[in-house]
Amino acid sequence: MGPRVTVYEVGPRDGLQNEAALVPTAGKLQLIGALADAGLSRIEATSFVSPTWIPQLSDAAEVTAHLPARPGTSYVVLVPNARGLGRLREALERAPGGPPVSAAVFLSASETHNRKNVNKSVEETFAVFAEVIPPARKAGLEVRGYVSTVFGCPYEGAVDPGRAAEVALRLLELGCGQVSLGDTIGVGTPAQVRAVLRRLLPAVPAERLALHLHDTRGTALANALAGLEEGITTFDASVGGLGGCPYAPGASGNLATEDLVYLLHGMGYDTGIDFERLVGAGALAQRLTGRELPGRALRAALATRTEG
Amino acid sequence: MGPRVTVYEVGPRDGLQNEAALVPTAGKLQLIGALADAGLSRIEATSFVSPTWIPQLSDAAEVTAHLPARPGTSYVVLVPNARGLGRLREALERAPGGPPVSAAVFLSASETHNRKNVNKSVEETFAVFAEVIPPARKAGLEVRGYVSTVFGCPYEGAVDPGRAAEVALRLLELGCGQVSLGDTIGVGTPAQVRAVLRRLLPAVPAERLALHLHDTRGTALANALAGLEEGITTFDASVGGLGGCPYAPGASGNLATEDLVYLLHGMGYDTGIDFERLVGAGALAQRLTGRELPGRALRAALATRTEG
Repeated sequence: MGPRVTVYEVGPRDGLQNEAALVPTAGKLQLIGALADAGLSRIEATSFVSPTWIPQLSDAAEVTAHLPARPGTSYVVLVPNARGLGRLREALERAPGGPPVSAAVFLSASETHNRKNVNKSVEETFAVFAEVIPPARKAGLEVRGYVSTVFGCPYEGAVDPGRAAEVALRLLELGCGQVSLGDTIGVGTPAQVRAVLRRLLPAVPAERLALHLHDTRGTALANALAGLEEGITTFDASVGGLGGCPYAPGASGNLATEDLVYLLHGMGYDTGIDFERLVGAGALAQRLTGRELPGRALRAALATRTEG
Repeated sequence: MGPRVTVYEVGPRDGLQNEAALVPTAGKLQLIGALADAGLSRIEATSFVSPTWIPQLSDAAEVTAHLPARPGTSYVVLVPNARGLGRLREALERAPGGPPVSAAVFLSASETHNRKNVNKSVEETFAVFAEVIPPARKAGLEVRGYVSTVFGCPYEGAVDPGRAAEVALRLLELGCGQVSLGDTIGVGTPAQVRAVLRRLLPAVPAERLALHLHDTRGTALANALAGLEEGITTFDASVGGLGGCPYAPGASGNLATEDLVYLLHGMGYDTGIDFERLVGAGALAQRLTGRELPGRALRAALATRTEG
């Protein structure tokens, strides 16, 4: 067994929230179950954002209350604010004895993107988090933090690595167990990944950081490799590249889980994931969204299956 | 200016030979000119293979005789055997004073793939090359060698890194100026890239090796990064990922030139390439083939252009 790497699956949340298709709750739970069965140990299941903003996730309470219990799999649910945290806690109270669930919060390294995304300045967002992260911790919930636009902002362009690192550090200090560094628009390169990580890693244990890479320009796995070389052991990815149609307007370009797992297994890392079952989950994601997903290893694997 | 990296463009040959569309000769020459104008210094233009096998390149003599002269750009033409070399030399005689042209030969590291590809054993292919490489050199032509299936074979599976290295060394000894190591079916990972390069680089100067990576499973740029870290300075790529539709049967999955150049420029390497002009060449390749090409940075760049 090689060194362990955790693949953090964001397809059911980050993926589906960026898909045009409205997948029914039962389909989401089926997909989440298939991912857990494939050995994904961390699955971000849904988000308690306003259904007006993101109708794709309006069934967050239902999804949270029916998360499938699988040995070794825990779940994460996004909460934008104290109200979101309250809704998460209510949903969890409806499902006593359910599988482990933790919370996640998000903000941007760049001021303009944060304002466009949550209608608040970065400072105002930190004030909100002061009312979310400590109460969540008190209630026994781990909290993950996301920093968006770490390597570039669609409005401001390049983002200073020092700024991105500072935002990440503040999230850790506020009580986040892990902070995920997001290449929201897929502009990052390995040199940038290293620049940000080398500002953080002297002060932060590697397991408290994750990389959330987008493949909009084909660089996601090169950036992941740079992260691995710097010592990062958690990488976010979305089954089939769900939510990541790089040529559709507004799409996010998520790194496909199959591409990441293919690379990791090929390099001898232990992920605990069954690749064939993961491909099955990818095929299910295609059926649920009614489109061919952009993940390349998924396409290659399904083409081989058809031939064979 | 950062360190220099040579992007070796294979779209007009390796790309078009794997496209369903039959692009007219004038269109090919227009694409080659656009690539040269974008600053590509090495362009593989066509191949003197049998037109029965590859009708897409049946105009090899016409293309070779009309290659556009551009400062800083030289061309390469594939020749499978002595007959192909003869046809190349005839075509060059029709165009005295034309731009610099050299030759390239190819074989596979795996026996079965070589037999399926050229109907000869690897040893028999080396015997053919003994009648191609020295005469080409005598006639003043540089010769590049391609090794296919370096990281895996569709028929035999894994390929021993020692075997791949041995085939590459024999090509260099036979007189090839540079040998390009090909991940023909896109199965390679950075660990494999390093394993093969570490067998060769103690004996061979880095500039005599190139990597020819395919993006079938999304790993091409991660593999390129591993190559850069090992000291490789020449990388093959195909404009727009031409020839590389990873989900179509028989497609090759070429690394897209735009993806590679985006990564290299983002990391501070000097390629001599104008990215915007390269995107223009990619858009032309899409018009000529009548399809949306798979290159991700091309799609992202064209989406931005449309929005802007």
